Amino acid sequence: MTQLLSARAGEITPEMRQVADRERVEPEIIRQGVAAGTIVIPRNKGRRNIIPTGIGAGLKTKVSASAGIYGEQGSIGAEIEKIRSAVGAGTDAIMDLSVSGDIDFMRQEALSATSTPVGTLPLYQAMAEASQKYGFSLKMDVEELFEVIERHTADGVDFLALHCGTTMSIVERAKKEGRVDPLVSYGGSHLIGWMLYNQRENPLYEQYDRILAIAKKYDVTISLADGMRPGCLADSLDGAQVQELVLLGELVRRAREAGVQVMVKGPGHVPINQLKATITLQKSLCKGAPYFVFGPVVTDLAAGYDHISAAIGGAISAWAGAEFLCYVTSSEHLGLPDIDQVREGVVAARIAAHAADLAKELPGAADWDLDLSRARKELDWKQQISLAIDPVRAERLRKERTDDFASECTMCGKYCAMEIVSKYLDGSKKAC
Amino acid sequence: MTQLLSARAGEITPEMRQVADRERVEPEIIRQGVAAGTIVIPRNKGRRNIIPTGIGAGLKTKVSASAGIYGEQGSIGAEIEKIRSAVGAGTDAIMDLSVSGDIDFMRQEALSATSTPVGTLPLYQAMAEASQKYGFSLKMDVEELFEVIERHTADGVDFLALHCGTTMSIVERAKKEGRVDPLVSYGGSHLIGWMLYNQRENPLYEQYDRILAIAKKYDVTISLADGMRPGCLADSLDGAQVQELVLLGELVRRAREAGVQVMVKGPGHVPINQLKATITLQKSLCKGAPYFVFGPVVTDLAAGYDHISAAIGGAISAWAGAEFLCYVTSSEHLGLPDIDQVREGVVAARIAAHAADLAKELPGAADWDLDLSRARKELDWKQQISLAIDPVRAERLRKERTDDFASECTMCGKYCAMEIVSKYLDGSKKAC
Repeated sequence: MTQLLSARAGEITPEMRQVADRERVEPEIIRQGVAAGTIVIPRNKGRRNIIPTGIGAGLKTKVSASAGIYGEQGSIGAEIEKIRSAVGAGTDAIMDLSVSGDIDFMRQEALSATSTPVGTLPLYQAMAEASQKYGFSLKMDVEELFEVIERHTADGVDFLALHCGTTMSIVERAKKEGRVDPLVSYGGSHLIGWMLYNQRENPLYEQYDRILAIAKKYDVTISLADGMRPGCLADSLDGAQVQELVLLGELVRRAREAGVQVMVKGPGHVPINQLKATITLQKSLCKGAPYFVFGPVVTDLAAGYDHISAAIGGAISAWAGAEFLCYVTSSEHLGLPDIDQVREGVVAARIAAHAADLAKELPGAADWDLDLSRARKELDWKQQISLAIDPVRAERLRKERTDDFASECTMCGKYCAMEIVSKYLDGSKKAC
Repeated sequence: MTQLLSARAGEITPEMRQVADRERVEPEIIRQGVAAGTIVIPRNKGRRNIIPTGIGAGLKTKVSASAGIYGEQGSIGAEIEKIRSAVGAGTDAIMDLSVSGDIDFMRQEALSATSTPVGTLPLYQAMAEASQKYGFSLKMDVEELFEVIERHTADGVDFLALHCGTTMSIVERAKKEGRVDPLVSYGGSHLIGWMLYNQRENPLYEQYDRILAIAKKYDVTISLADGMRPGCLADSLDGAQVQELVLLGELVRRAREAGVQVMVKGPGHVPINQLKATITLQKSLCKGAPYFVFGPVVTDLAAGYDHISAAIGGAISAWAGAEFLCYVTSSEHLGLPDIDQVREGVVAARIAAHAADLAKELPGAADWDLDLSRARKELDWKQQISLAIDPVRAERLRKERTDDFASECTMCGKYCAMEIVSKYLDGSKKAC
C-alpha cells in the first residue's frame, strides 16, 4: 500500500497523522488531500530517520534545497556540510543532484544527514556511469537507466525527479517555437541529447508504467520534471512549456490510477504578470497535483541576487497556489553556491513561503508574526531574535550594530519623545 | 512657476524634456502627467548638478536610499560614502535623514555628492537644534521648525518629507484602534510627542498653506509622510492608517491647487494580500498622486533579510501602481546599515522595481532582459556581466566560481550532450 492507496481506502496512516500534527489540522483533512492527490507525503517505505512532510493544497508552503557533487573539485564532505547548513536554515526537503564522483556514497550520506525527505535525479548518475563505461554518456543503455532508478529507490530516496514528459513531439515543438534560449534544463538537455543521438523516444515516457511499478513498490513520489523550463522571461508560457505541461497532466492521471504519489516540477524564469496564469494552468491541467517550482525568478538580469528575484517570484507563486519552492541561490547563473549562499538561499525561499502563507491566511500563520511584533513593541530583544526567521544571522547583525543603539537617539535630550507618546497611546514605555 | 504650473499652462519645460528622454516617451506625455499631478519631477529651482527624474504613473519605477548622521558615532564622511555607494548601485534618489552632528554641512555634502534628487526630513534638525538649545527637543518652537524648512529649501533640497496629516484626530484614532505597535514612524513619534507635550495641534497641518508657499517658491516637491505607518502586519490598513490617508488626500488636493508638486509616503509592514488594496486606496483617496512606499515588508520576522522581504512587497506594490520604492536594508530592525548593506538594499529595491516594470509591460522594459538572455544563450560572459543589474557583484561571484566552470560537466565524456541538442534545436553551439 502507498499513502495514496491507504488514503483512498479511508485509512489514516501514521505518516498522515504526523503531517496533521505538524500542520495543526485534522488527520482527516490530510487523508482527503492525499486521496485526491492534492497532497503528497514523499516517504520511501525503506527510508529510516525521516520526519514525514506533507506538500500540497492547504498546507504550509515548503521549500527544497539542492546539493550534490559536480565536477572534479566536488567533495562529499563539502556537500554534506551544505545539506546540514540548508537543514539548519530550515529547508523542508533536500535534493541530491550529484553528477560525478561516488554518487552512490554521496546519496547514502545525504540520506543519513537529514530527516527531511530526500529527492534525486537518477538520469544524472545513469549518464555519468555510461560516460565512465563507454566514454560517452549518450551511449547509456535504457536498462542501465532503469537499474539506477531501482538503485535510488532501494536506497530509500523519497522522491524522484524524472523528465517523463519530454517526448520527441515536445522537442519538435521547442524547435518550432523559436525560443530565445531553447533548453536550460540540465537533465532535460542530456535526455534530449540521448534521444537525438540514439534516434529514440524518451524511455521515461515509453516505459512510464515500469517507473510507476518501481515507485509504487517503495511508495516513492514521482516529481515530473519539465525539460522545457523557460530559461528567460521571453520563453515563459510558450508552446513548448505548455505542451509539455499538457502531457504532464496525462502522466499525473496515470500515476494516480497506479496508486503512485505524484507532483509536477515547473518554472524557471517567469514575469510577475504570468505567475498566476502559470499556476492556474498547472492546477487545471494537472488536476490539483502539488506544483514544485524552481524560483521562479522574475527578471533575467539579477545574477548575484537571484535568491531575491526568486523570493519575489516564489512568494507570488505560492500565494497563487504553488506549494513547494525549489530554492535559488545568489550564485545562480554564475557558479555553484558556497555554504553561506546555500543558507541564504534557503532563508530567502522560506521568507517567500511564509509571506505567501500569511497572504493565504493559512490558519496559524499570522501567530508567529504577531508574537514577534509584540516582542518588538516590548523591546524584548531576546525574544525578537529567537523568533526571527534566522536567529543566527539576526543575532550576529544585532551584535555588530549594538553601538548604534548604545548611542541611540541623541535627538531628544533629557526626555524621550517616544516615551511620552507610548505612555499616551497605550500606557507602555516604549522608547526610541 | 513650478513644473506643475508650467505643465498646466501647456509649457514643456527642459526638465520635462529630459525626463521624457530618459523614459523614452514623448515630452507631451510627461507634461500631461505633471499637469495632472500623477507625475512629479522633484527639482529645487536652486539646485545645481541635478539630473531631473520623473516619478509617477507610466514611468519606470524609481527607488530611494537613505543616509544621514545618527548618534554620536556617525560621521559625515562615512555617510557620504554610503550615498556614493547607493548612487553607484543605481538609486534614483537619496534621502538625508540626519538627526545629529553638523546637519547643515551634511546636507550640503549630500547635495554635492549626487546628481539624483535629494530629500530631507526637516523636523529632525529642528528637534535636534531645540535639544541643543533647550536641553529637550520637544521645547522646539514652531517658528524654529519653519526656519529649518526654509533653510533646507534654500539649500536646494528637492523634496521634503513632512508629516502634515498626523493631526490630533489621527492620534486619537490610533489610541482607539488598539494597535499592536501604535507608532513606529520615528519622525511621526517625535511630532506627536511635541503635540502631546505642548498640547497643540500639528503645526505642519495648521500652517500647511505656509509650507505650500515655501515649497512653491523653490518648486520643492512635498512628500506627505505618514505618521501612522504600520509597524507590523497586524496593524496594516487599520483605522489610524486609513484615516490619515484620507486626510493626506485632502492635502494632496490643496497642494495641487497651490501649484505645488506633491507625493504621498506610505507603508511599512503589509501582508501580500493587502498590497493591492493599499495601493488602490491611495490612488483613489489621493487622486493619483505618486505613492512612495517604504518596503513594504511582507512578514514581521525577516530581521537580517528585510531587504528580501521588502523586495517581495516592493515588486507587488509597484506592479499594483506604487511608483517610488524606499529601500530597506538587511539591517532594518537591528541597527544602521553599513556600506555593503546600503548597496545590497538599493539593488534589491531595483530588482523589485524592474520586475514590476516588466509585469506592467512598460515599453522597453523587456529589452534589457532580452539582451541579457541572448548573451546568456551565446555564453557571452562579458556581455552577461555588463548587463547584470549589479555588474560588480556578478563579476566578483563569477570570478570566485570560475573553477566550477573550468571543471564543468564531467558527465558527458567525449562529446557534449548539450551541443548535440543545441545544434538540432537552433543550429547553435551552446554547450553545458
